[in-house]
Amino acid sequence: MLTDSSQIDNYRQSFPALSNKAYFNYGGQGPLSQPAWTAIQKAYEFVQQTGPFSNAAGSWVATQVTKTRQAIGADLGVAPATITLTEAVSVGCNIALWGIDWQPGDHLLISDCEHYGIVAAAEQIGRRFGVEISILPLLNNPDDPVEILANHLQPQTRMLVISHILWNTGQVLPLAEMVKLCHSQQRSVAVLVDAAQSVGVLPLNLEQLGADFYAFTGHKWYCGPDGLGGLYIHPAALASLEPSFVGWRSVINDPVNNKIDWKPDGRRFEIATSAFPLCAGLQAALDLHQTWGSQQDRYRRIVELGRYLWRRLVDLSGVTCLLETPPEAGLVSFQTPGRSHQQLVQQLEQQQIMVRSIPSPDCVRTCVHYFTLESECDRLVEAIASYLQGKSSEI
Amino acid sequence: MLTDSSQIDNYRQSFPALSNKAYFNYGGQGPLSQPAWTAIQKAYEFVQQTGPFSNAAGSWVATQVTKTRQAIGADLGVAPATITLTEAVSVGCNIALWGIDWQPGDHLLISDCEHYGIVAAAEQIGRRFGVEISILPLLNNPDDPVEILANHLQPQTRMLVISHILWNTGQVLPLAEMVKLCHSQQRSVAVLVDAAQSVGVLPLNLEQLGADFYAFTGHKWYCGPDGLGGLYIHPAALASLEPSFVGWRSVINDPVNNKIDWKPDGRRFEIATSAFPLCAGLQAALDLHQTWGSQQDRYRRIVELGRYLWRRLVDLSGVTCLLETPPEAGLVSFQTPGRSHQQLVQQLEQQQIMVRSIPSPDCVRTCVHYFTLESECDRLVEAIASYLQGKSSEI
Repeated sequence: MLTDSSQIDNYRQSFPALSNKAYFNYGGQGPLSQPAWTAIQKAYEFVQQTGPFSNAAGSWVATQVTKTRQAIGADLGVAPATITLTEAVSVGCNIALWGIDWQPGDHLLISDCEHYGIVAAAEQIGRRFGVEISILPLLNNPDDPVEILANHLQPQTRMLVISHILWNTGQVLPLAEMVKLCHSQQRSVAVLVDAAQSVGVLPLNLEQLGADFYAFTGHKWYCGPDGLGGLYIHPAALASLEPSFVGWRSVINDPVNNKIDWKPDGRRFEIATSAFPLCAGLQAALDLHQTWGSQQDRYRRIVELGRYLWRRLVDLSGVTCLLETPPEAGLVSFQTPGRSHQQLVQQLEQQQIMVRSIPSPDCVRTCVHYFTLESECDRLVEAIASYLQGKSSEI
Repeated sequence: MLTDSSQIDNYRQSFPALSNKAYFNYGGQGPLSQPAWTAIQKAYEFVQQTGPFSNAAGSWVATQVTKTRQAIGADLGVAPATITLTEAVSVGCNIALWGIDWQPGDHLLISDCEHYGIVAAAEQIGRRFGVEISILPLLNNPDDPVEILANHLQPQTRMLVISHILWNTGQVLPLAEMVKLCHSQQRSVAVLVDAAQSVGVLPLNLEQLGADFYAFTGHKWYCGPDGLGGLYIHPAALASLEPSFVGWRSVINDPVNNKIDWKPDGRRFEIATSAFPLCAGLQAALDLHQTWGSQQDRYRRIVELGRYLWRRLVDLSGVTCLLETPPEAGLVSFQTPGRSHQQLVQQLEQQQIMVRSIPSPDCVRTCVHYFTLESECDRLVEAIASYLQGKSSEI
């Protein structure tokens, strides 16, 4: 684990995006490291050199796809066969949502802290299949999510849709307990997790965690390229999930191209051509994290920095943090009652400090990664203080 | 239109992939031009410079997405609002297949010359919704596809799935007439077109053509990056198609992020984060084609070269072309009875001549683009001749 500040400065130089700004939007999109970008460039060049469409280029692409699934599996503590590569978190969620054999009258429970893209997907399942949707109220009940969940499961509930780390408040949910509760119902309830904010942050062992479907992306906390993510499907849940959108990557064919069967694993949910050079980029992004320290080390540092920023914000007059207790991850959201959040975000961006506003609840969200600097946090807090004091603060 | 050979040589230097090989796999993947690659690189750099997640980067991405839809719309003779950006041809086909309100007993007709990825998608629709699938036999009936179609439509047929240019034989179907026939049935039959081999080849005016759904990719004949394509939805068909996989790009929200409605146009079928820098690459790819000449000029040259290659192959002893009449596009497929096609492909690749085998019907497929050289065709034909003569022909 790098602790020496010159080592950290050196490490941060791997990320060109960090050279000209204080960056707090890891939960939106992580910066692409130079090694990841170089790997992508080399991949494009190699494909053009050997193809682009040829046996040699095709073999290389197949290897990259395999290695990407392996690298992700290693990070999540699961076999590569449990990983489906996708374009984005939402695609993974849609694969799980559309793969269930829904019957009219089935019930889907979704928390009130889910990203609106996932909410739209769940609502469309409701419309298309006559599934009843109801809301698990976590926002105003942060203290015991398991008890709240117990009160909202119904006999006809078939699926819970929930984030591991809430994208708005930053709360880390006790997911293992919630999964256990869902699976212990008379009719087992499948759990679909939006892992946009947890993959690349929490040390994970997904098989132990037990969630049926865990959808993530490479372009946020992993700091890989946008357009490449994945879906973990628990081995016990694979048989329950029908493929929906499918293509040549989903199937095994006989020599005259008649489909014999689905691919035996998560690949059956992959569709067709993707931006394959990005696979090299995501692998390089994952490799780079490991040079800094173990998952545990990185997570510990994220929490330290999250708590440092949270405490500084709690101490700031005119600021209310959404979490009332110190964060257990890197998301720190706050409100500035009576003062516009969007204007604050814009003013910070003019000073090259990147945060974002969240519409529900109306707030400003900041994210710290393990390689965030305390001095960056200080700069952010001071700029917020200036804004609240009404100074124009053009640094 | 460039006709002078030094101009053509100069133009071809825009494609690094062409510098070290004779390339005949445009139908698999087109080479990425230097301007397209430079645009992608600059896009990545710009996004890192201004974000990656910031208001400035977000605005730039939104503009790129809009401009890409405009550029594609301009090429296809339709309004940008009719274009859904997708990851691949198959994704576009799945959007159309899953968007129909299928009822048990409905019938879907699919030709026997469709790509196996699309066949798998259609078969899964059959399984999931109790839809009957049957086959339109075009392979052995190339002479009058419209008559064959008339004989295979049924009262309960709801959709025809068909390619505009058949990926195996290279036949260009009389799509406008086939669409007219489908739409004139007592119960109108929707037409979903796999346009993998026609977009970037045929001069197209999709509104006039009348097909309901026309799914294409940027990475084949357009010579854009892999991982970015689109789906055209005829304005008259939009209301009939329900969104299936959806996400934040599909919806319009109120200020607290509750969904108000779907996006009013093709964007409702887009899901979430994609590899957005690729948008800049596809735009540059489309711009480059226009510097060579008009759509009509390029198509004319493709046909000239296709016929040149076809005639040379017809004249070659031991070779049987799949098309019995001169091609109307750039795909020329052939068989070498008694000699292995895969071995031929491998041997050609060792000589840096890129063609592919197709499993059904078992054949070798070659593709010429408008910037293919006659001398490349000659080199290919000579290498095939050497193979058939049993020479090792390591040039």
